[in-house]
Amino acid sequence: MEKMTDRDPKPDRDIIRTAEIISVGTELLTGQTLNTNTYYLAGQLTLQGVAVYHQTVVGDNPGRLEELVMEAGNRSDLVFLTGGLGPTEDDLTMRIVAESLGYDLELRPEALAQIQRYFTTTGRQMSENNRKQAMLPACAKMLANDNGTAPGAIIPGRETGYFCLLPGPPSELQPMFEAYVRPWLSAKTDKLFDHHFMSLMGIGESTCEEKLKDLIDTQDRVTLATYAAEGEVKLRISEWREKGTPRTREMERIIGEIRSRLSDYIYTEDGRSMTEVIRDLLVARHETIGLAESCTAGLASAKLAELPGISDCLKSSVVTYTNESKVILLGVEEELLARYGAVSRECAVAMAEGARARLEVDLSLAVTGIAGPGGGSPDKPVGLVYIACSYKNQTRVEELRLSGNRQRIREVSCLRVFNLARKCLLADS
Amino acid sequence: MEKMTDRDPKPDRDIIRTAEIISVGTELLTGQTLNTNTYYLAGQLTLQGVAVYHQTVVGDNPGRLEELVMEAGNRSDLVFLTGGLGPTEDDLTMRIVAESLGYDLELRPEALAQIQRYFTTTGRQMSENNRKQAMLPACAKMLANDNGTAPGAIIPGRETGYFCLLPGPPSELQPMFEAYVRPWLSAKTDKLFDHHFMSLMGIGESTCEEKLKDLIDTQDRVTLATYAAEGEVKLRISEWREKGTPRTREMERIIGEIRSRLSDYIYTEDGRSMTEVIRDLLVARHETIGLAESCTAGLASAKLAELPGISDCLKSSVVTYTNESKVILLGVEEELLARYGAVSRECAVAMAEGARARLEVDLSLAVTGIAGPGGGSPDKPVGLVYIACSYKNQTRVEELRLSGNRQRIREVSCLRVFNLARKCLLADS
Repeated sequence: MEKMTDRDPKPDRDIIRTAEIISVGTELLTGQTLNTNTYYLAGQLTLQGVAVYHQTVVGDNPGRLEELVMEAGNRSDLVFLTGGLGPTEDDLTMRIVAESLGYDLELRPEALAQIQRYFTTTGRQMSENNRKQAMLPACAKMLANDNGTAPGAIIPGRETGYFCLLPGPPSELQPMFEAYVRPWLSAKTDKLFDHHFMSLMGIGESTCEEKLKDLIDTQDRVTLATYAAEGEVKLRISEWREKGTPRTREMERIIGEIRSRLSDYIYTEDGRSMTEVIRDLLVARHETIGLAESCTAGLASAKLAELPGISDCLKSSVVTYTNESKVILLGVEEELLARYGAVSRECAVAMAEGARARLEVDLSLAVTGIAGPGGGSPDKPVGLVYIACSYKNQTRVEELRLSGNRQRIREVSCLRVFNLARKCLLADS
Repeated sequence: MEKMTDRDPKPDRDIIRTAEIISVGTELLTGQTLNTNTYYLAGQLTLQGVAVYHQTVVGDNPGRLEELVMEAGNRSDLVFLTGGLGPTEDDLTMRIVAESLGYDLELRPEALAQIQRYFTTTGRQMSENNRKQAMLPACAKMLANDNGTAPGAIIPGRETGYFCLLPGPPSELQPMFEAYVRPWLSAKTDKLFDHHFMSLMGIGESTCEEKLKDLIDTQDRVTLATYAAEGEVKLRISEWREKGTPRTREMERIIGEIRSRLSDYIYTEDGRSMTEVIRDLLVARHETIGLAESCTAGLASAKLAELPGISDCLKSSVVTYTNESKVILLGVEEELLARYGAVSRECAVAMAEGARARLEVDLSLAVTGIAGPGGGSPDKPVGLVYIACSYKNQTRVEELRLSGNRQRIREVSCLRVFNLARKCLLADS
């Protein structure tokens, strides 16, 4: 199961340089499901130096799928198909790919055994239609599914590239990719598309590009791209190289030049997220963090807790959505609330200082603001947010005036309060 | 600006039945940005009865984009292009679409005025390259951008369908769609693709389909689809109808039949999310909610707070990531923690009851578990989670054994604890 068998119809092709991703499912076309699989796979392929030039979504429609399979197999070395491997009638990916390539499906005992094992482990009853999921072409390398019923497959085409079929649920697709597809793929790439990423906060995309205009206009082997993400700007500096060779001097020169121009704004260059940067700073100092959240209501804490190992620094947080809870849980004074209101510089400071004392942490963060759509006034409009950080012997507070909808205001508030934490930590290093 | 002008090259075409979505941006192909725009637009189009058969992603590549623009315009009544409207060199969507359709770009004063206004309002400096964003074809309907610099456009093709160009950042695209595109589109649709959605929890997709097999096998005008979402199953019952006509009896019959077979599992039929169901139940009773979260660390509170108006019931929450904080913030007894551990039925109950008393709420929820990847043991493996709900005169607790990665375990834990809240609320109605 772990290597291509002697049943391969032609010798193992060696090098994979291009891939594309076809997502199968009417639920994607109708906008009922967000296509996180394409995002995940594209990111993984990029890191492996495989170029992705096409991403397509197709419904549960046999004709259109067959057409796409052939088109994709002819132009790409490797074609991913995600979804449509389920037990139900409208799951047709395996059948259509096999038919398009001229292979028969057969019941693969190792696939059936895996499916039965999954049902046994989870204490559920296997349905008769799950047997369909064990039907694969003879030449397919089966990919075991440790988190669901549908096995995946890597199928070599007779005249075309490889096809890699993966199940639709991300919680099945991602572990399967990591365990079985990545190692297989890694042995089949010779070049490396090396990227250097920089994440910047506190500068707009236009201004950023103006500061780098000469580098962008003269780019050649080493390419440079700027793009705006929610609340921040990202830069990507890239070059193609042979595997095992070091970065070119040209690439190093460009990276150095950008650093010298934009150092005030760059918060990470190694692909770490803002939360990873904070976690790493805190853990290195053996310090703890706690949060007091009003308009973000737990979102900032939850973002920190996405990181494994966060328990090394995250102790506790409070969500104080009402004035009353700010008084009870954080010790904010009623008089302060009456005088300045909950959305104020003063309240943010009191929340941060209250959290630091009550939660017994080394660094505390506070967020209070108006996320909308209601609750705004001419004086305190939707998007007005105060963030504060209490660390060592000072508490810093910032006023934000954010645009966008409720979700964006909450998301950007989290990013900004993390950046404030980063600045406080670095100011004291 | 609000209606097509007399500069239209041909009479306004009346009916839009099909649309497709082309996303422009190398950052999508390389997996650096998640394509939420396609998801959003597809959902909006589906609701408007416009069928989406194609979704494609293309990089910042003029040749490939031009090819796609013509292909799409020939097969779809309306083609959305998202992204590539920025001020920078690699933003080429407007130019390529205009060239493909044979239109010149001209500086549109109303677009320039809008861009200048945006910079004035946000107190930033307009760059010279922002002027490029005011260049549109003469026949284009400009779409004002209230949240960024790039105006959008609706451009009628001479021989093809319409092209609708929208900016890439979701916080600009969504308000622009809602304010200007939806009303325009709504006047151009005659049929309605009516969907009835049911969300189910506590049943697998296979079992669900087996229970509905006869209905699925005999579907005709009214279509029935099941699909697995994270931690739940969704059903979609759909039919095409003339606008303004009521649902057919056939559709009503099928909906009724499904209800009678699966009533134990259906938690909503009106498209509301689980959090909306809970909020509505609580607000109708004038009751309040508070949470005590360990492994979810604020995620459940943050999900509730995504809803506008949640302050009518959400008072406060605590994130107790450490044992110590469970003692201090919730009054969980140290002896209980020593005896049963933090991930236990007993601790979940104590957390819920502590939260209900300390946060002074009518209903409290608690989550404690092992989200992984570390921290598991043979006795208490990764994925073991206890959820509890304290309401009226009882506290209910459930043990979950979840599979998947850290993120999935946390997400599903939230869904399940909300479902527990729903059951407690309904049991007492």
